[in-house]
Amino acid sequence: MKNLVKSVKGTRDFYPDEMAKRQWLIKKLAEASESFGYQMYDGPCLETIDLYAAKSGEELVKEQAFVFNDRGGDPITLRPELTPTLTRMVASRQNLLTFPLRWWSFGPFWRYERPQKGRTREFFQWNIDQIGSDSVQADAELIAVAATFFRKVGLTPDQVKILVNDRQLMDAELNKIGINAAQKSAMLRLIDRIDKLPADIWEEKALAEGLSADQVRAVRDLLGNYDLWKNSESMRQLFAALKDLGVEEYAAYEPKIIRGLDYYTGTVFEAHATNGEFRAILGGGHYANLVSDVGGNPLPGVGFAMGDVVIMLVLEAFGLIPADLVDPNTLFMTVFSVETLVESTRLASQLRAEGFKVIQAEPEKLAKQMKFADRLGLGRALVLGPEEIADGKVVVKDLHSFEQVSIPRGELVEFLRKRA
Amino acid sequence: MKNLVKSVKGTRDFYPDEMAKRQWLIKKLAEASESFGYQMYDGPCLETIDLYAAKSGEELVKEQAFVFNDRGGDPITLRPELTPTLTRMVASRQNLLTFPLRWWSFGPFWRYERPQKGRTREFFQWNIDQIGSDSVQADAELIAVAATFFRKVGLTPDQVKILVNDRQLMDAELNKIGINAAQKSAMLRLIDRIDKLPADIWEEKALAEGLSADQVRAVRDLLGNYDLWKNSESMRQLFAALKDLGVEEYAAYEPKIIRGLDYYTGTVFEAHATNGEFRAILGGGHYANLVSDVGGNPLPGVGFAMGDVVIMLVLEAFGLIPADLVDPNTLFMTVFSVETLVESTRLASQLRAEGFKVIQAEPEKLAKQMKFADRLGLGRALVLGPEEIADGKVVVKDLHSFEQVSIPRGELVEFLRKRA
Repeated sequence: MKNLVKSVKGTRDFYPDEMAKRQWLIKKLAEASESFGYQMYDGPCLETIDLYAAKSGEELVKEQAFVFNDRGGDPITLRPELTPTLTRMVASRQNLLTFPLRWWSFGPFWRYERPQKGRTREFFQWNIDQIGSDSVQADAELIAVAATFFRKVGLTPDQVKILVNDRQLMDAELNKIGINAAQKSAMLRLIDRIDKLPADIWEEKALAEGLSADQVRAVRDLLGNYDLWKNSESMRQLFAALKDLGVEEYAAYEPKIIRGLDYYTGTVFEAHATNGEFRAILGGGHYANLVSDVGGNPLPGVGFAMGDVVIMLVLEAFGLIPADLVDPNTLFMTVFSVETLVESTRLASQLRAEGFKVIQAEPEKLAKQMKFADRLGLGRALVLGPEEIADGKVVVKDLHSFEQVSIPRGELVEFLRKRA
Repeated sequence: MKNLVKSVKGTRDFYPDEMAKRQWLIKKLAEASESFGYQMYDGPCLETIDLYAAKSGEELVKEQAFVFNDRGGDPITLRPELTPTLTRMVASRQNLLTFPLRWWSFGPFWRYERPQKGRTREFFQWNIDQIGSDSVQADAELIAVAATFFRKVGLTPDQVKILVNDRQLMDAELNKIGINAAQKSAMLRLIDRIDKLPADIWEEKALAEGLSADQVRAVRDLLGNYDLWKNSESMRQLFAALKDLGVEEYAAYEPKIIRGLDYYTGTVFEAHATNGEFRAILGGGHYANLVSDVGGNPLPGVGFAMGDVVIMLVLEAFGLIPADLVDPNTLFMTVFSVETLVESTRLASQLRAEGFKVIQAEPEKLAKQMKFADRLGLGRALVLGPEEIADGKVVVKDLHSFEQVSIPRGELVEFLRKRA
């Protein structure tokens, strides 16, 4: 075989088996989104670089986005995330839309990162936002959507947890420790990294920000205080709302959760596998001001994003991806001989018109046809030989048990429906 | 309002209304594809430029593709079509796949063309192929898939036709006229353009290829001969098979259909609106040799591609896009007061667990809640005030007729299911 052309590093081919998994994932997240009345939307994959000049995406665009000039010389970006697009879309129809709007999306994104476990350069992302409400109920609803998704794919609260914090609470608590405004954002970044750095390095870095040893200890204590949420009225309301929504077992308070500094202003959350083996499954939070950076009027909201790569690794690790996603009801229409081909073709068409999925065989040896059906994992074959044609019957063959039964043509549809 | 950041020229925003149309289109073409047992697949949006060095995509890549260097300096192409990707995927697992394989796909593509009616730079395309069979039945099946799609979206044979031709037939007929091998590909290109050029210009160009006036007249006669297909055994078989498949009324023989020169080798087809107002809706045909250019062993196949832009214009022109694609069964859970919020939240959760879509209102004035539901086009609201809570009931309100009925909680799910 000659040298095959290779695919681009960090991209994936979705052969039917893999595609069936992707479609299964989309179905589950669509169900979760739509059970709360969220509507699907999408933006372009290409955006101007200006769109990402606003604060939230700057690092992403400078360091990780695919940016290039098109044939007309205009700089184009392959979207590395959806929020700036959402922002632009909401801002440009702000006076026409009905708020709070509930929108979700699923599509491809690109980041020029080093491909590794849980990271590809081309990936898919579920984005979901409620925009226009500043209430704790909205925050709780988004967490409930995430929990509902986990429930739908079979992930239990023992296997995954949605870790929740409140940025205003953290701000207030850091104030109490006497950390000043200049030190605060550096400290929040450090809190975000506390589990990634060795304890002594982390402390060194905190001291380097000008904190006293007492303050460093106080921050450490803060991050071990799982009752901290009780100091926050909105956290108390949030956990109560999660209980009303029936998803409290999926949520837990976690003082170390911080998320993006320039973006989130209130509730923040991240979902993790409890075994600690994977990157964050999804992350999001409450923002005070979605659209003013791109020229709209300020709008609060809450949302999260989930990539397809980590969740599929988690689902695979827990054995939760259905083994056989091929439709078991697809029928295999055999062809007895070239002479009976017409009859087989007609029957296949009639069954398709009745809503069945039917694959028609090539007019070759029956054994070869059956081997083909077997390799495709098909469950039932129809045989229409000269005898059956003369008798007005069809043989239905179970390809697993090899049982077969001869059915009058007039009763075939009903028979197949019953067994479907 | 400040200056809004603009979207990239030739791209589209899919607000929920537009997205619902795209999803409706996908549903219909998925149904058509899957009724014939085709499996969904997808390739990456990014491919190496080498992949398009094979003959079929060369013009596309040189003139129309978005090509750029990534941050590592590697040249990347945004896929302008799917066939080269399909080719690569099939070639790289040629020994593992079960042939004939039936695959379909739907996803985004990019071409740097001048945006105009029916053309955008970012568009979606339905691709469907049967690979590994050289039979007329395979060709007929693909045409039947297209016809089935048209039937499913409500397009009648009066409104659209799938125009069919045979490249081998045309080759034989041009031989009969004495057109030599050197002239043939230029003449095929000219035949492809006959309806786009004024008659005198077209004749000039044909004469310039070295044809005699008699030969030019003979070619013109050929292109007006709608019985020409009867000269071809495979065309006769094809039209017979289309009849067996119950889709003959959607198909018509058209001697002017040629399609891409370097690619198709047998049956070729294009679907057009019969009113002549639109570009081709879809196009495809039979190829002898899919994968050998990228290093695989030769494989025959048949397939077609349909962009989303033209078909949506056609469907809109014929009034066939359903007006209201919002799910009419979405329930609106009102909130009577802050005190009853918990009860409303719990009921909404219970109904979601039963499979209903439920949007929960903000705890604001009831009139404002109803206005919100009205703007979203929701059909039914649930009211749960202190009285209903005390009586164990729920009021179900029809938001179109304004009729309302009080239902015991225990009977609510059944009541809602019956009316859904």
